[in-house]
Amino acid sequence: MEICYKPIGVIHSGFTDQKTTPIQSIFSTAEGTLEIFPEYAAGLKDLEGFSHLILLYHFHNAGGMMLVQRPFADVKSERGIFAIRHFARPNPIGLSIVDLIGIEDNILRVSGIDILDKTPLIDIKPYIYPFDNRSNVRSGWVDKRDLNGIRDAGATPEGLKDH
Amino acid sequence: MEICYKPIGVIHSGFTDQKTTPIQSIFSTAEGTLEIFPEYAAGLKDLEGFSHLILLYHFHNAGGMMLVQRPFADVKSERGIFAIRHFARPNPIGLSIVDLIGIEDNILRVSGIDILDKTPLIDIKPYIYPFDNRSNVRSGWVDKRDLNGIRDAGATPEGLKDH
Repeated sequence: MEICYKPIGVIHSGFTDQKTTPIQSIFSTAEGTLEIFPEYAAGLKDLEGFSHLILLYHFHNAGGMMLVQRPFADVKSERGIFAIRHFARPNPIGLSIVDLIGIEDNILRVSGIDILDKTPLIDIKPYIYPFDNRSNVRSGWVDKRDLNGIRDAGATPEGLKDH
Repeated sequence: MEICYKPIGVIHSGFTDQKTTPIQSIFSTAEGTLEIFPEYAAGLKDLEGFSHLILLYHFHNAGGMMLVQRPFADVKSERGIFAIRHFARPNPIGLSIVDLIGIEDNILRVSGIDILDKTPLIDIKPYIYPFDNRSNVRSGWVDKRDLNGIRDAGATPEGLKDH
């Protein structure tokens, strides 16, 4: 069985190299734009009331799948691909929660971008606090990691640091 | 451009009718199982440490796309499809955050299921509190709705109420 989708738009960012792209939105202050193809622009109605968006996109540069992989956040340990957010997934779909700055026609300005330039956008969903916020969360291997360590394991938001 | 994926598994739930399926995980106490196809089971390593999972799945019964739609949570108003979580999306991908109860081989027991039986599973991502939790969230039209009203607009978790 094959499930096929068509991009609804393209993500534009200042990141053209995976090595200098922030590894999570939460560590990124970078702005970017979402160009929604005109035929889908009517679906943006009412979106301006939301402060945060969930983006689903295709990791177009992902290469092959690895069922066990070393996460960028902790390169010393191999983890199952479903326990990390790495792009080398069986189905290379990325998920980022970004801040919506504004909408003009079919162009959305967002911040907190951790996504490569020219990435195909598959879906936008509103981040709805009572649905998407969870308390009493155990975050597995991430709980044992210092957050600053995770941030520094990736590139800086400005993409200046090599690693 | 077409992007094609293959299911990594199947979601099993007690819900066989969309009309009696809970409209959001947060309102569902129902349990279900995720059957991961054996060839992907190695990717489940380390997942048992997470209390919550983000599921991406294919709305296999979605039918056609509607760019403007009345959400189940507020059937009186038409909203843009990207401002709601309705299944009639250009790319019918669903997102649910469920509670992980346990893993045995390639079978995951979860609760908070709001998904139809036999839904193809596309990806599992760990819910990571510092990445996926957001504060200072404006949730657009949902903010104006009473949460109990949203729950009652959908089916009860037990699927007993018609609407």
